[in-house]
Amino acid sequence: MRIGIDLGGTNIAAGLIDDKLNIIAQDSVKTRRGADAIVNEMEVLAHSVCSQAGLRLSDVECAGIGSPGSIDAREGTVVYSNNLDFHNVPLATMLSHKLDMPVRIGNDANVAALGEFHAGAGKKAVSMILVTLGTGVGGGIVLGGRIYDGFNGMGGEVGHMAVVKDGERCTCGRGGCWEAYASATGLIRMTQNAMERHPDSLMTKISGEMGKVSGRTAFMAARQGDAAGDAVVEEYLSYVACGTANLINLLQPAMLCFGGGVSNEGPYLIERLRPLLGPELFEVGEKKTQLCLAELGNDAGIIGAAML
Amino acid sequence: MRIGIDLGGTNIAAGLIDDKLNIIAQDSVKTRRGADAIVNEMEVLAHSVCSQAGLRLSDVECAGIGSPGSIDAREGTVVYSNNLDFHNVPLATMLSHKLDMPVRIGNDANVAALGEFHAGAGKKAVSMILVTLGTGVGGGIVLGGRIYDGFNGMGGEVGHMAVVKDGERCTCGRGGCWEAYASATGLIRMTQNAMERHPDSLMTKISGEMGKVSGRTAFMAARQGDAAGDAVVEEYLSYVACGTANLINLLQPAMLCFGGGVSNEGPYLIERLRPLLGPELFEVGEKKTQLCLAELGNDAGIIGAAML
Repeated sequence: MRIGIDLGGTNIAAGLIDDKLNIIAQDSVKTRRGADAIVNEMEVLAHSVCSQAGLRLSDVECAGIGSPGSIDAREGTVVYSNNLDFHNVPLATMLSHKLDMPVRIGNDANVAALGEFHAGAGKKAVSMILVTLGTGVGGGIVLGGRIYDGFNGMGGEVGHMAVVKDGERCTCGRGGCWEAYASATGLIRMTQNAMERHPDSLMTKISGEMGKVSGRTAFMAARQGDAAGDAVVEEYLSYVACGTANLINLLQPAMLCFGGGVSNEGPYLIERLRPLLGPELFEVGEKKTQLCLAELGNDAGIIGAAML
Repeated sequence: MRIGIDLGGTNIAAGLIDDKLNIIAQDSVKTRRGADAIVNEMEVLAHSVCSQAGLRLSDVECAGIGSPGSIDAREGTVVYSNNLDFHNVPLATMLSHKLDMPVRIGNDANVAALGEFHAGAGKKAVSMILVTLGTGVGGGIVLGGRIYDGFNGMGGEVGHMAVVKDGERCTCGRGGCWEAYASATGLIRMTQNAMERHPDSLMTKISGEMGKVSGRTAFMAARQGDAAGDAVVEEYLSYVACGTANLINLLQPAMLCFGGGVSNEGPYLIERLRPLLGPELFEVGEKKTQLCLAELGNDAGIIGAAML
């Protein structure tokens, strides 16, 4: 029995995970400010999930935390998190003292990849990369059943690989990051630009009804046969394909899994991506990386944290 | 005692490697056409290096081959090599039958990375990426002392990561690969373009004296204070920095090592690269990837092959 905690900028979610990687109890609270307040909330959540399951904390083997920001997994610290305003916070050690059990910590995107690998889409693969197409582009690399995060625990930043040298400014400060194009944010920018050029497109009607332009606008229009919407989807997916091909050419994972909001487009996403990806791949043999969709949604973070 | 064989398009070089990873005997021949001819030559070389050292083939534990092309290291076959005109050639098995010892095979760039890791620049690192800036951009990823080449043995193609989506056409067919910019070939193209714009630059004089424009032309001019040459070096290194940052942001290796012809520019290369690289890195903590130059030259391939 393990506890997995997904620390987000808005909510902290905790789950009690059994040996078959099922979440048998879970609870969440709003994220408060400051490390001490957050650790206290985590302790309350740990007791809550145990009591829901009729167990005591001493029945739990260990706990894990998935946290935003740059994590030093070896040291158990959040080196820096803009969201949480953390600088060198030894979060794992602090919680370990509170709960009197071993606590490990990992970057939230890496942890979600680990969860998806063990309990979701990656269950039978030897290696997997998770790419989350959300507000940003995150992800994690899982090799041999473990997170690969480099010698300093900061690897796996798939979103901050430049695909257009000196291109669109990324939130990280670099120009042309994959995140600046393949995120929902990039998709919304492409959608807005296309709507200006094609005010009569179905995208205008759809975004009017929904009250805003979202990452779904162009996909909804494209599915209904709108030419301008279709062109946006094609443009957006050409960027998704570019970075995906980079990851495959470099790392040849058995499985490449898409998560995040945009992945809710489902098999349609993969079907449209595949023909764009093929010509970009440096592949010869029969063994090709399998593309798939994440299966666990938000549970991936909780299960992955428990797997640390 | 092991035998390492570096199979090139022009020469086959073999070495006898002792337990301290020294090459105690070596020999080479021109590469002939056809798998049988090549395996026969390898057998002759194996006998030659043994007799040089006063040993018999039965004193050798095993052998390894570094080969160009796409290698299935698990199966021991060259899946495809354009240079050698090989399709699914079981080269390791063929040589194993000839020599009556275990033979393994790997991609030449991966094998050179392994050699450089164990016996050269990477000696004390926990992980290393070798990037060879030569006619193309090759390289290899070494994690935990072993080549990382993906689930199908074809990973590590650092040169075929796009850094300029839909940019310069690469020899692989893809647009905008790192290889199309950061190779000596890319550097020569940039040099030629700059010479057309600046016919009075020192580059014209240098290339005239040398009888051709080479990967050294712009560097030689820049070192002598030529502004146009300096601009070419700066442009070229901005591309080297872009792909290098991608590799570091993604994989955070303890060490990133440059080999290939352009790396003969030595510390000057690293010193000029560093300020271009810094702003591209997604790094927060104190532990940063160390940049270095390959130390073994052509011996890396022989030693790495013996380490397979």
